[in-house]
Amino acid sequence: MLRCAVVGAKGYTGVEITKILMQHPEVEISYLADVDDVAAPVQKYISNVLPNEKMVIAKYSPKDIVAGSDIIFLALPHRVSMQVAGKYFDKHTVVIDLSADYRFRRVATYEKWYGTKHTSAAWCKKAVYGLAELFTDEIKKASLIANPGCFPTGTILGLAPLLGKGLIKEDAIIIDAKTGVSGAGRKPSPANHFGELHENFKAYKVNQHQHAPEMADQLNRFAKQPVSITFVPHLLPLSRGILTTIYLERKAGVTAKQIAQAYKTYYAEKVFVRYKGEGVFPQLKDVAYTNFCDIGFTIDKKNSRLIVITAIDNLLKGASGQA
Amino acid sequence: MLRCAVVGAKGYTGVEITKILMQHPEVEISYLADVDDVAAPVQKYISNVLPNEKMVIAKYSPKDIVAGSDIIFLALPHRVSMQVAGKYFDKHTVVIDLSADYRFRRVATYEKWYGTKHTSAAWCKKAVYGLAELFTDEIKKASLIANPGCFPTGTILGLAPLLGKGLIKEDAIIIDAKTGVSGAGRKPSPANHFGELHENFKAYKVNQHQHAPEMADQLNRFAKQPVSITFVPHLLPLSRGILTTIYLERKAGVTAKQIAQAYKTYYAEKVFVRYKGEGVFPQLKDVAYTNFCDIGFTIDKKNSRLIVITAIDNLLKGASGQA
Amino acid sequence: MLRCAVVGAKGYTGVEITKILMQHPEVEISYLADVDDVAAPVQKYISNVLPNEKMVIAKYSPKDIVAGSDIIFLALPHRVSMQVAGKYFDKHTVVIDLSADYRFRRVATYEKWYGTKHTSAAWCKKAVYGLAELFTDEIKKASLIANPGCFPTGTILGLAPLLGKGLIKEDAIIIDAKTGVSGAGRKPSPANHFGELHENFKAYKVNQHQHAPEMADQLNRFAKQPVSITFVPHLLPLSRGILTTIYLERKAGVTAKQIAQAYKTYYAEKVFVRYKGEGVFPQLKDVAYTNFCDIGFTIDKKNSRLIVITAIDNLLKGASGQA
Amino acid sequence: MLRCAVVGAKGYTGVEITKILMQHPEVEISYLADVDDVAAPVQKYISNVLPNEKMVIAKYSPKDIVAGSDIIFLALPHRVSMQVAGKYFDKHTVVIDLSADYRFRRVATYEKWYGTKHTSAAWCKKAVYGLAELFTDEIKKASLIANPGCFPTGTILGLAPLLGKGLIKEDAIIIDAKTGVSGAGRKPSPANHFGELHENFKAYKVNQHQHAPEMADQLNRFAKQPVSITFVPHLLPLSRGILTTIYLERKAGVTAKQIAQAYKTYYAEKVFVRYKGEGVFPQLKDVAYTNFCDIGFTIDKKNSRLIVITAIDNLLKGASGQA
Repeated sequence: MLRCAVVGAKGYTGVEITKILMQHPEVEISYLADVDDVAAPVQKYISNVLPNEKMVIAKYSPKDIVAGSDIIFLALPHRVSMQVAGKYFDKHTVVIDLSADYRFRRVATYEKWYGTKHTSAAWCKKAVYGLAELFTDEIKKASLIANPGCFPTGTILGLAPLLGKGLIKEDAIIIDAKTGVSGAGRKPSPANHFGELHENFKAYKVNQHQHAPEMADQLNRFAKQPVSITFVPHLLPLSRGILTTIYLERKAGVTAKQIAQAYKTYYAEKVFVRYKGEGVFPQLKDVAYTNFCDIGFTIDKKNSRLIVITAIDNLLKGASGQA
Repeated sequence: MLRCAVVGAKGYTGVEITKILMQHPEVEISYLADVDDVAAPVQKYISNVLPNEKMVIAKYSPKDIVAGSDIIFLALPHRVSMQVAGKYFDKHTVVIDLSADYRFRRVATYEKWYGTKHTSAAWCKKAVYGLAELFTDEIKKASLIANPGCFPTGTILGLAPLLGKGLIKEDAIIIDAKTGVSGAGRKPSPANHFGELHENFKAYKVNQHQHAPEMADQLNRFAKQPVSITFVPHLLPLSRGILTTIYLERKAGVTAKQIAQAYKTYYAEKVFVRYKGEGVFPQLKDVAYTNFCDIGFTIDKKNSRLIVITAIDNLLKGASGQA
Repeated sequence: MLRCAVVGAKGYTGVEITKILMQHPEVEISYLADVDDVAAPVQKYISNVLPNEKMVIAKYSPKDIVAGSDIIFLALPHRVSMQVAGKYFDKHTVVIDLSADYRFRRVATYEKWYGTKHTSAAWCKKAVYGLAELFTDEIKKASLIANPGCFPTGTILGLAPLLGKGLIKEDAIIIDAKTGVSGAGRKPSPANHFGELHENFKAYKVNQHQHAPEMADQLNRFAKQPVSITFVPHLLPLSRGILTTIYLERKAGVTAKQIAQAYKTYYAEKVFVRYKGEGVFPQLKDVAYTNFCDIGFTIDKKNSRLIVITAIDNLLKGASGQA
Repeated sequence: MLRCAVVGAKGYTGVEITKILMQHPEVEISYLADVDDVAAPVQKYISNVLPNEKMVIAKYSPKDIVAGSDIIFLALPHRVSMQVAGKYFDKHTVVIDLSADYRFRRVATYEKWYGTKHTSAAWCKKAVYGLAELFTDEIKKASLIANPGCFPTGTILGLAPLLGKGLIKEDAIIIDAKTGVSGAGRKPSPANHFGELHENFKAYKVNQHQHAPEMADQLNRFAKQPVSITFVPHLLPLSRGILTTIYLERKAGVTAKQIAQAYKTYYAEKVFVRYKGEGVFPQLKDVAYTNFCDIGFTIDKKNSRLIVITAIDNLLKGASGQA
């Protein structure tokens, strides 16, 4: 039995990860806590548990958390995570950080996009990027895993095989992503007001979203050269899911068959990535409340263009690939 | 041409009333303002106007507003309205207050339910309750009109003919109301967060909603005796509209024909109330973006019960019956 | 291991029950089939299964289904179920019918409300009404279990303790129910067109819904006398869930404490009914994708009225209480 | 006063155009009819009219329609329109066809994409493509106007100025469009089932949508050479609106200023196109229930890429630019 703790158990992401851990037969939840340090019955935040469930979100005690846990999930906002993470690094535990704080290989990129000094830079270098299907071996050995952002998850899974096999032009990558509302967290703001979102649809942070450099950073590894991406996120009037439509240029002579083969090779043994085939397009309904990433593609026969579509549940696939 | 001003032009209600006034052929908008005193082009708050529209939400100047207007609409939050209304009372203007501040005939009831001292009690007595179909004559002569709340509008229009004609038991009135989200205003809060409302439905303020005493106060006038009501509001995952299902007991011997006749008599010449007939049930789609109140009913032949259903658009019918 | 078969595995209800059975550690799915007799991979109908899942919806072979199963779920439309059920009755199997065909103790009531001759009347008498929390003992011994309708589930669970303990007047029961869209099945029709439902809300089948006599039939058992109910269903613009607001009259002298006690007594050991307490009101979000029925109540101190609110997920609680 | 008739007054588009005509002060509705030839009060199809409105959807009499009308709107399905249109061509009337039947300059393209023989080919050549802002002069003189499809409207308005001024590469046009559900009409089908659309999002007809050749046909006129487009439509879980995100390549040396200038030049006097400026992105909420097309853009400074976003209400802008 793995003893798992969740720090930040009151937020959307913390709630989801707790639910998954509860259902996992080989996991025992050792500690639920949040940095506001207010204890509460777990029923207050997680509605679908049995009424006689005794588990609580406890007072916040890092020392007890480390002592009793094999794995510690940090489900905290960006900036908060790096301030508290130091208390959890210990030779006997693995820390899985769901914030952005340890996702960048270069601290300078983080500091530019998140507009803050990094207070725990040394650990950035040791962190492993937690995309389970692509970095399986590294993750198994890591003691700090930086869980990918929601947009990067759907994008990188769609692009890594194509860049890794050298099938597409590295400087012609257009990512048109559409996300549900839950990604934005539980804090009320004009941006998540029902009246602003319902019966509405819009782009936001065009070319300015902090997930763009995160994606580029990882895609560079597969391309073995710098890629150039254009990233336009949009906001959907629904709760859960990210659908990403990616426009690419095939390198000269690349066929549909080669593309299909690349996906099959990369994901043959990865049960949570479902390659759906040429001409089959994923939809959010099929991945909602699951840990799947669905992928399909088509080529435009009139030209060299290639269209890839991926779908994930932003709250699940974005947060639990590791467990 | 009537010269109309709107104070509070930046809120949901203010925006709606401004749109209606803009389209009204016999109205000229004399002034748009808000108490935050920040001038802005009207395009910032009202999206569907022509790009070359010159109108502005101006600096807040009560003196200029009174001088240049025949009618002044106050679209302000409760409590704020009575603090500023005094500046607008003038023998040459009519004030239409969209807040709750002048709706109650007894100041004590207001103070109990709104939890605040009334600072303008003398004017309460002079105010006319602005339900256009029922108080037509009084409204024409009034200089202060207290616009009804959204829930009372749909409820009173459904009940006044039945109480006025003595067809139902005054002590057996159950009002099960379901409202869209826009009624709650533009201010972000956990209660209007998309994630709280979408794919959700719930009752709130059961037996504790401040519109219950407002309804009872007016219904008493038609019943000519105190009525006893049970009022349960619910929150729908949609933008606009209130559907009210009302459960009643017929007095001995009352027939469906008498009920139909009561509605026909009261609303024969009122184009904005559409009595739909026995066995026909209104739906929100039919009244959205209109000023209509649709009404239908059925009797339960097994017993003395009568079911009335009414539908309105909370932003329109709730705010513009007077114009 | 219980060997379970699902007949009608392609419909909404069949899909849900199959998902539950798949996750149940003590269940082995012995057969999935549908009466259209077209075999298909399970992935075609159930999107959230692993891509390498081998299970199929097989050719329709009643004989094989009976031979290999301990429990057979019939997830078929009304009228179809009674035509095929005979093939599954066997001394070694238990049949759980999710249609309405075996829910009525009097065949005449069924025939009146469903407008069809009952072709399997003898079995009606042997069928047990499958509300697991209330008829636990009978269900354990039954060989044919008639699964309750979605509306009756939420209503009966809210009323049985009050009628059973004699706390409310039997002739004053008003049930105002609001359901999500999924209850109406997968067949396209004007009634489930997106444009008819989105941003809409309406009552339907007022006093004419076939679930009303089903409720009354069961409520009579707890009241030990005929009850008189008024039942008004409404259609919500969301996928899953039924919220039921029930208006009642307390018998003379009945206190809130007695009501709370009745719920506690009936559901003390029933983990899937969560009695939430006086003044706490269930919401759909808390029961979506769960097997819970949440119950809360309040009394109206001005009169003898009592308001009970219950919430369930219509696809889950309505179909799986038995497993 | 212009006397206008609507043939096909019972469909979504017919209802919308009738509503617009009703409100237009210089229009008198001469005839409402539908090819099913069943007369009905207008209230049955248009819910927001006064209860005493006398207008009817009349028996279908082409001869009377032509005799009494200056303009005839055909709001009929593709294929049906060309079968009946002949009856309405007359030297005294203008026909505005809202179907696709007269939109293509080459009959062969129509026949290929709509899979049917064109039965009225001679009229195709005389038809004018009814994009009011771009073909103003031609439209004024036309006797048959082919109203644009919903996707082409938003796309062509965004691209015509850029192609007309030679600012973008003609062979690098990627159109990622997202539409609400109302475009698909009123006929029930699995595709517009609430359960398929709510909480879902997906691409459809990728590279296979019949609006792609329609767009290309018109864009060629502005580019004065064949353009190469990739068109991927997606389906949003909302009622009204199309948001189109267009990815382009600037020609060498083209600046943001030139792009802004092109929009200003083309749309200076067109009140229904609102150019919002560089860095401003339209949203559906701002154009819902209006006749506006909002346009904004940004350039990607890392490369030569240009991103244009346009927003329209598919039911209004798609059908009424001409009136």
